[in-house]
Amino acid sequence: MKKIKSEYPEVYDAINKLNDVVYNGKSLDYKTQKLIAIGIVASRCDQSATEKQMRSAMHELNVTPDEIADVLRVVLLLSGMPSFTKGMRILEEILK
Amino acid sequence: MKKIKSEYPEVYDAINKLNDVVYNGKSLDYKTQKLIAIGIVASRCDQSATEKQMRSAMHELNVTPDEIADVLRVVLLLSGMPSFTKGMRILEEILK
Amino acid sequence: MKKIKSEYPEVYDAINKLNDVVYNGKSLDYKTQKLIAIGIVASRCDQSATEKQMRSAMHELNVTPDEIADVLRVVLLLSGMPSFTKGMRILEEILK
Amino acid sequence: MKKIKSEYPEVYDAINKLNDVVYNGKSLDYKTQKLIAIGIVASRCDQSATEKQMRSAMHELNVTPDEIADVLRVVLLLSGMPSFTKGMRILEEILK
Amino acid sequence: MKKIKSEYPEVYDAINKLNDVVYNGKSLDYKTQKLIAIGIVASRCDQSATEKQMRSAMHELNVTPDEIADVLRVVLLLSGMPSFTKGMRILEEILK
Amino acid sequence: MKKIKSEYPEVYDAINKLNDVVYNGKSLDYKTQKLIAIGIVASRCDQSATEKQMRSAMHELNVTPDEIADVLRVVLLLSGMPSFTKGMRILEEILK
Repeated sequence: MKKIKSEYPEVYDAINKLNDVVYNGKSLDYKTQKLIAIGIVASRCDQSATEKQMRSAMHELNVTPDEIADVLRVVLLLSGMPSFTKGMRILEEILK
Repeated sequence: MKKIKSEYPEVYDAINKLNDVVYNGKSLDYKTQKLIAIGIVASRCDQSATEKQMRSAMHELNVTPDEIADVLRVVLLLSGMPSFTKGMRILEEILK
Repeated sequence: MKKIKSEYPEVYDAINKLNDVVYNGKSLDYKTQKLIAIGIVASRCDQSATEKQMRSAMHELNVTPDEIADVLRVVLLLSGMPSFTKGMRILEEILK
Repeated sequence: MKKIKSEYPEVYDAINKLNDVVYNGKSLDYKTQKLIAIGIVASRCDQSATEKQMRSAMHELNVTPDEIADVLRVVLLLSGMPSFTKGMRILEEILK
Repeated sequence: MKKIKSEYPEVYDAINKLNDVVYNGKSLDYKTQKLIAIGIVASRCDQSATEKQMRSAMHELNVTPDEIADVLRVVLLLSGMPSFTKGMRILEEILK
Repeated sequence: MKKIKSEYPEVYDAINKLNDVVYNGKSLDYKTQKLIAIGIVASRCDQSATEKQMRSAMHELNVTPDEIADVLRVVLLLSGMPSFTKGMRILEEILK
């Protein structure tokens, strides 16, 4: 994001504004939205985004491994085994 | 699901078992998992699954339109405008 | 495809050539490849392609509903419930 | 899967039950279903799942490289060049 | 978007800001970016977004059917036949 | 592609023919089609295809980093933050 900030500051500002608006919803707290974010990226095959979302959820918001596993249960039902096992593997590597 | 139950009862049973296990996690309540489910299907282009998840969340669990809109904010950030506007349109049609 | 044939004949020819090469593999028969095709499109949310693949498999190759349901079982495991139920619904509508 | 077995045994059981039901279909044999599985995961960008499915198909069921290449031909037609070349590259690395 | 504007004005503003920034790039003109947008949504299975992007490209920017067909050629190579035929069908319906 | 050429020459020929037809459209030049290609693969989570498309665009066609960043702006709007940041990271690594 550093490069985006220095070279494309107007993109950086628009992303920051969007980020603020997204995570300051009317009803849901930040933690619930973060769990939703983990579910979305784990359902796709984006390893780096999944790892990043899990790490920030655990460090910023004290989300527990069991809570992440509960997100991944939903991923298992709605997106299938490969997304689930990949998500569990990423979680396991973070916990090492 | 009726046809699956009568013609492929062993598939029906396995799905039911999986469904039970998924939505009886260790830490998150059913409502939070349901919101995650909405986020996952709205991020993909599956109109019927999104509508079904939204309806059951609103009817079974009293999830409010503002809460669904907060889910869709995360979809906007992580999956882009088309998924967000499609999700908002489905929500609007349910509320009519 | 009619419009493509008349307006973009070189695209039409390249698609035909590709189609021939794809479905004349070294080892697998056409029916097995057709079942693979159903699995791929049912795993995505492409209703029209799924319907088209199922219809041509049933009409050209006498693929049975139980065989298609066996394809959809794999879809259930690897791509999740929404793809599976959508596939079963499309199959049911074809059989009506 | 070891971690899932020890920490979330009820998830492990549900997955095993689903797996059994999926791969004991009414009409298709295990090998055909395995080829369908390769087609599905190769069509997505999931490198680890594709490699895993190819390896187990080759070791458990004596699926040949030419048979896998015939699966990838269908992937080429239905999911495009990048999925096809990635699948061929994974196959080549397994054969080394 | 009307509902979003009245009920979630801060989301509406953030989207507008992002939209402005995206379509006022440093180097590419609006028409080229619009063609890229068509390629992206046609590669996914989002019928409504594809139709909307094609219509606005043709009406606002005088993009021709042949230009859209050239976008869809890239979709054919990179995302496969179903995306291509769906895109051509949407284009044909717009031209009727 | 070398292995495909030697072992499956008929697949290799069909791909070459398709490639020729795709990139010799009626209206758009090769560079515009290449930018569309970058947008499509960056919108999916295919790191290797994105890197390959960016490299060939820069080396064969003198596409600039700012032009690629303008493609990625469209990706940001239509496919969300994770695709955008992944695309920017790939671009940055190419430029090192």
